[in-house]
Amino acid sequence: MQIRTDLAMESRDFAQGISGVTMHSRQMRAIKETLVCIETEEAARALDKARGTYITLVHPKLARCPGEERNEMARAICEALRAMLPPSGDLLVVGLGNRHMTADALGSRVLEDLLVTRHLKELPDESLYGRLRSVCAVAPGVLGVTGMETAEVVQGIVEHVHPAAVIAIDALAARESSRICTTVQITDTGIRPGSGVRNHRAGLTRETLGVPVIAIGVPMVVYAAVIARDALSLLLEDIGIHEEEHTQAIDTLMEKLTLQGMGEMVVTPREVDELVGKVARIIADGLNMAFQPRLSEEEIQLLSHDEP
Amino acid sequence: MQIRTDLAMESRDFAQGISGVTMHSRQMRAIKETLVCIETEEAARALDKARGTYITLVHPKLARCPGEERNEMARAICEALRAMLPPSGDLLVVGLGNRHMTADALGSRVLEDLLVTRHLKELPDESLYGRLRSVCAVAPGVLGVTGMETAEVVQGIVEHVHPAAVIAIDALAARESSRICTTVQITDTGIRPGSGVRNHRAGLTRETLGVPVIAIGVPMVVYAAVIARDALSLLLEDIGIHEEEHTQAIDTLMEKLTLQGMGEMVVTPREVDELVGKVARIIADGLNMAFQPRLSEEEIQLLSHDEP
Amino acid sequence: MQIRTDLAMESRDFAQGISGVTMHSRQMRAIKETLVCIETEEAARALDKARGTYITLVHPKLARCPGEERNEMARAICEALRAMLPPSGDLLVVGLGNRHMTADALGSRVLEDLLVTRHLKELPDESLYGRLRSVCAVAPGVLGVTGMETAEVVQGIVEHVHPAAVIAIDALAARESSRICTTVQITDTGIRPGSGVRNHRAGLTRETLGVPVIAIGVPMVVYAAVIARDALSLLLEDIGIHEEEHTQAIDTLMEKLTLQGMGEMVVTPREVDELVGKVARIIADGLNMAFQPRLSEEEIQLLSHDEP
Amino acid sequence: MQIRTDLAMESRDFAQGISGVTMHSRQMRAIKETLVCIETEEAARALDKARGTYITLVHPKLARCPGEERNEMARAICEALRAMLPPSGDLLVVGLGNRHMTADALGSRVLEDLLVTRHLKELPDESLYGRLRSVCAVAPGVLGVTGMETAEVVQGIVEHVHPAAVIAIDALAARESSRICTTVQITDTGIRPGSGVRNHRAGLTRETLGVPVIAIGVPMVVYAAVIARDALSLLLEDIGIHEEEHTQAIDTLMEKLTLQGMGEMVVTPREVDELVGKVARIIADGLNMAFQPRLSEEEIQLLSHDEP
Repeated sequence: MQIRTDLAMESRDFAQGISGVTMHSRQMRAIKETLVCIETEEAARALDKARGTYITLVHPKLARCPGEERNEMARAICEALRAMLPPSGDLLVVGLGNRHMTADALGSRVLEDLLVTRHLKELPDESLYGRLRSVCAVAPGVLGVTGMETAEVVQGIVEHVHPAAVIAIDALAARESSRICTTVQITDTGIRPGSGVRNHRAGLTRETLGVPVIAIGVPMVVYAAVIARDALSLLLEDIGIHEEEHTQAIDTLMEKLTLQGMGEMVVTPREVDELVGKVARIIADGLNMAFQPRLSEEEIQLLSHDEP
Repeated sequence: MQIRTDLAMESRDFAQGISGVTMHSRQMRAIKETLVCIETEEAARALDKARGTYITLVHPKLARCPGEERNEMARAICEALRAMLPPSGDLLVVGLGNRHMTADALGSRVLEDLLVTRHLKELPDESLYGRLRSVCAVAPGVLGVTGMETAEVVQGIVEHVHPAAVIAIDALAARESSRICTTVQITDTGIRPGSGVRNHRAGLTRETLGVPVIAIGVPMVVYAAVIARDALSLLLEDIGIHEEEHTQAIDTLMEKLTLQGMGEMVVTPREVDELVGKVARIIADGLNMAFQPRLSEEEIQLLSHDEP
Repeated sequence: MQIRTDLAMESRDFAQGISGVTMHSRQMRAIKETLVCIETEEAARALDKARGTYITLVHPKLARCPGEERNEMARAICEALRAMLPPSGDLLVVGLGNRHMTADALGSRVLEDLLVTRHLKELPDESLYGRLRSVCAVAPGVLGVTGMETAEVVQGIVEHVHPAAVIAIDALAARESSRICTTVQITDTGIRPGSGVRNHRAGLTRETLGVPVIAIGVPMVVYAAVIARDALSLLLEDIGIHEEEHTQAIDTLMEKLTLQGMGEMVVTPREVDELVGKVARIIADGLNMAFQPRLSEEEIQLLSHDEP
Repeated sequence: MQIRTDLAMESRDFAQGISGVTMHSRQMRAIKETLVCIETEEAARALDKARGTYITLVHPKLARCPGEERNEMARAICEALRAMLPPSGDLLVVGLGNRHMTADALGSRVLEDLLVTRHLKELPDESLYGRLRSVCAVAPGVLGVTGMETAEVVQGIVEHVHPAAVIAIDALAARESSRICTTVQITDTGIRPGSGVRNHRAGLTRETLGVPVIAIGVPMVVYAAVIARDALSLLLEDIGIHEEEHTQAIDTLMEKLTLQGMGEMVVTPREVDELVGKVARIIADGLNMAFQPRLSEEEIQLLSHDEP
C-alpha cells in the first residue's frame, strides 16, 4: 500500500536530512512559509519528488480567517509566483480536476475568479487595458469524462496559443488531515504523473509541454488508508512496540482495509463544498496580482467581476 | 469519543443477543433485507436506539448496478414503506440536511424526483389525477443556515398541513465504510436527536410532531475517528493483544486524533457527488410507488418529470 | 392580456397624477431613489397596488458597477429598511421563488449571504455575539415543488418562531427591460397575490401573517408579451395612428401571440445567471447592515464569511 | 438590425423557392422531419447559410413528452447522424457554449450523459468493451471565460487526437419562440461564425479543422428584438398597411429598442433551466445510439450510468 502525499514538505524521510536538499522556513504573521529546494537527482530519488523549488504557505485556518489575513495569503502566493514567472509573454492557466467532484474541483473553481485577458488585448482603453498582461485559461476535464489525457488536451492548446508559461492548479492528496484547505504549495516542477486527488496518468512538465510549468496545489483529501496507517504507528509507539516487529501485522491489516473498499475512500472535512470555494478565491486573487503587476488591487477587483 | 452509527444493524453489542430484540434476514436476489424489532425499553437502552421497527436493505453496488436491480431496490423500499404508511390522508415528505454539502444533500436531492401532488387535487382529469394520493414536501434546511431547529420548522408546517404521516429523508453516519451508498434503512421510529451527518439537535418523532414519523436514511459518511478506532482494534487482535489491556492507550490516541481536528473529518467515497444523485433517484422511485398505489410505474414515470 | 408590473413606479396611469399618491425623488450619486406613498384606498384601487410606502432604488448598471457604488447601494437599502423595521425582536427573512429557475432564484440566493444569528444567541462572546440581533431565514420553495402555498409554510413557521417582522425577498416582473437587475423596490405592503415572476397565488401580508411584512424585490424578467405590446404602441404613435383606433387589431394580435405560447415566455438578459448572484450579494449586504446596527461593516463581513 | 436565426428552415425567403435548394418533409408519428439541401453557392448566398444538408426534427412538446416519444426523438437523431458519420475512426464531441449561462449550457449538458470510451479501448472485456467505438469529448468554454477562440482550442485537440469527425453541440437562436426546446437541427456544414446564442467569432468547419464537422443544435432563445419586429409586421398586416410604406418607422423603432438595451435581451421560457436538461439527455441518447451501433439500447444505458 502506497502512502501518498503530494506535499514535498511531508515527504517521508524529510527530517533525516538528505544531502542535496535545502529547507528554509519563516513566519510571516499568521502564515508560515517553507522553501524546499531539491537540488540533485539523488535527493529527488530519495524523496520521490522532482528536482526543483517547492514553496509551501500554511495558514492553520485559511478558509476561515478574516479578510485581511486572506489578503496576506493572496499576496504571499503572488510573491512566490512572481519569482517563478517568465518576465513577459502570454500565460496559460490550466484548472485540473473534475468540476463535478467537490474535492477535485479546486482547479476549475479558481478559473471562475481568474482575470482572463488574452481576448481583450486589442481594446483601446489605454488607462487600464493597455496595462494588462495576456492571460488565458482552460479546464480540460479529467480522463474519465473526456476520454483524453489532460496532457494531450493541454499540449494541443499550448501548440496553438504559444504561452510563455503554463500555471496548473490542482487539488492534492496529503498525509495529514490538518493540511486540508490550510496549505498552498507552489512549485516550478509542474504536475507529475501519479499526483493529485485523481492520480494523473501523465504529467504536465517542461519536458512534455516545452514551456515552464508552475504548479499550485492545495490538499483537499487524505486517503483513508493513510489515516488508518498513521493511527496504527502512533498506537504501537505508545504501547512500546517497535513498528518493525509488526510490519507484517500492519501490512496484513492494510490489505484487509483495501479489500473492504477503503482504497477509494478519502477523508475530507464535512464542509468541503464551502471550503473549496473560499480557497479558490484566495488563489485566484494571488494569481491575478502576480499576473498583472501594472494594475492596482482595486483595478484587479474591478475587472475580475468586481466582487469584494 | 463516541463511536457513532445511525444504523440499527450496526449497533455495538448486537451480536450478543439481547432479549427484547428480534432480527430476521432474507436474501431477495441482489438485495439483502434485515428486519430488526426493538420491542422493550431495556433493549432500546442497551442498543441506544428507539423502540420500533428497522428495515435495512443492502445492495453492495447500489449506485452502480444495472437498471433492473435499481428497480428491485425501489420496489423493496416501496414494500417496506407501505407496511408503515397510514392507509389514507396527506403525506408530508421532509428532506433533511444541507443541500450545499454534498454528503448531507440526500434529503433535498430526493425531493427533486418526488411526485408532489397536493396542489393538483382539484384537477378534473379523472383517469390520472383522480387516482393521486396527496403528497407535499419541504426541505427545511439546517440550523446553521436557517437559525431554526428543523423540528421547529416542521412542527409549524405540520400544524397547518395536517398530514397523516411525515416521511423524513436523511443522510446517515455509519460505522463501516462499506455501508456508504449501499444500504437503505427504513424505520417507524422517526429521527432521533444526535443522528444524521450533521447531528440533529432535536428529533422528529411522533412525540414531537403528533403524527407517525417514518425515517428513511442512507449512510453517506463514516467519521474518520471511527476508521482509526476500528483499525486499531483489528490490529491489536491480530498481534494477540487483548483490547482491554490497552484501553487507555487507545483512548489517549483517540484524543490525540481529535485534537488534530479529526473529529470533524469524514470518510466518504471520492465520487460521492455522483453517488448521492443515483441513490436519491432510487429512493424517490420507491417513495413514489409506495405513495401512489393506484398509478402504474409508467404513469408515475410520466408525471414525475418523465425521465427514464 | 394583462400587462403586469410589480413596480409601483411603473404603474400604468402613474403620470396622470392621482390624488392620494405622493411621490418624491432624489439623486444620491449614481443611485436614484423614488419614494411613492399610496395613502388612500381609492388611489390603491386606481393603481392596482396596496396602500403603503414603496421605495425604489435605481442604479442603471447595478450588477456591473465598481465596488464602492455597490456598497452605496447596500447602504441605501439599509437606510430604507431601517425606517420600516420594528426596533427590536427577532426577524424572519423569507427567500421566495424557485432556486432551480435562474430568473426566480433571487430569494434563495440572498439567503446564501445573509448573516443568520438566531441559533447563536446563547454564545458567550460578549464583544461580538452579544451585540447581534436575532435573524432567522427560510426558503420555502414554490407551490409546484412543495405542493404547499408559500403562505401556508410561512404561517406555520411564524407561529412557532414569533418574529417581530417578516422580510420577504422576491424576483419581480417589470414592464421595461431596462429595470432588470438595476432596480430594487422596498415596500411595507408585503407580497400581494399575483405578484412575482411565478405569480404567487396567496399573499404574505400583515393580514395573513399577523406581523409586519416588508418586501424587497428586484425585476428579473419582463413578460415577452409586454415587449411586443409596447413596441406596437411606440410604432403606432410614430406613424401617427391613435392607439384607440386600433385597439381591436392590437388585442387580436396579442391573442395570437398568446396562442403561440408567448404567455409563458420571458425576456431576460443573456447573462442572467451571473447577474442574479451579484444583485443577491448587494441585497444581502444591505440586509445585514440594517439588521445588525451594532456591528461594524468589517465585523459583518467577518461573520458572514465564517459559517459557525 | 440583424434578424438572426440559426435554423435553415426559418431562413427568410425560404418560401419563395430558390433554385439550388431542395426540401422534403415527412411526419413520423409525433415528430416532423424536414430535410433541406442547399446545393449551390448562389442558393447558399441567397439564404445566408452554408452549402450542405440540414435535417430538422420537430416535436412540439419535446421536453414534456412521454418516455416513448422521447425515445423516438433519440432514434430519429441517431438515424440522421448515422448518415453523416464516417464509417470508422475516433469521434470527438465538442460541447459548445457557457456552462454557467443556462440558455447557453446545452453543449456541456449533453456531455454529462455522453458515453465516452476512448480511454477504455484497452480493456479486455470482449463482450462489451470490444464492441465500443472510440468517442472522446471536450467542453472548451467560451471566449469571454477562456480568452481563447473555441476554434483555437478545438484545432489543438484535433491535431493531437486525430478524430475521423467532430460533432459539435450548440444552443441556437431562432426566429420564433415556438422553436425553443422543440426543434433539433443536424447539419454536415459545421458551426459557422456568427451563429449560436453567443455568436461564435470563428467557425468550426471542415476547412478550419481538416475533418468533417457535424453540428447539432437546439434553439434556446429568440432575441427580444426579433419578437418586437415580428409583432410589428403582424400588426401592420392586420391593419392593412404595407410594410414597405413604413420601413423607416420600423427601423427607427428598432433602433430605439436597441438603445434601450434590448439588443442583449433574449426571450426564453421561464422554466428553461429544467428544459435544457431534458433536451440534453435526449440528444445524448441519440448520440450514444449513433456512435455505438454494436451495443443494444440496454447496454448503452448500463454503460452510461456506470462511470468507469
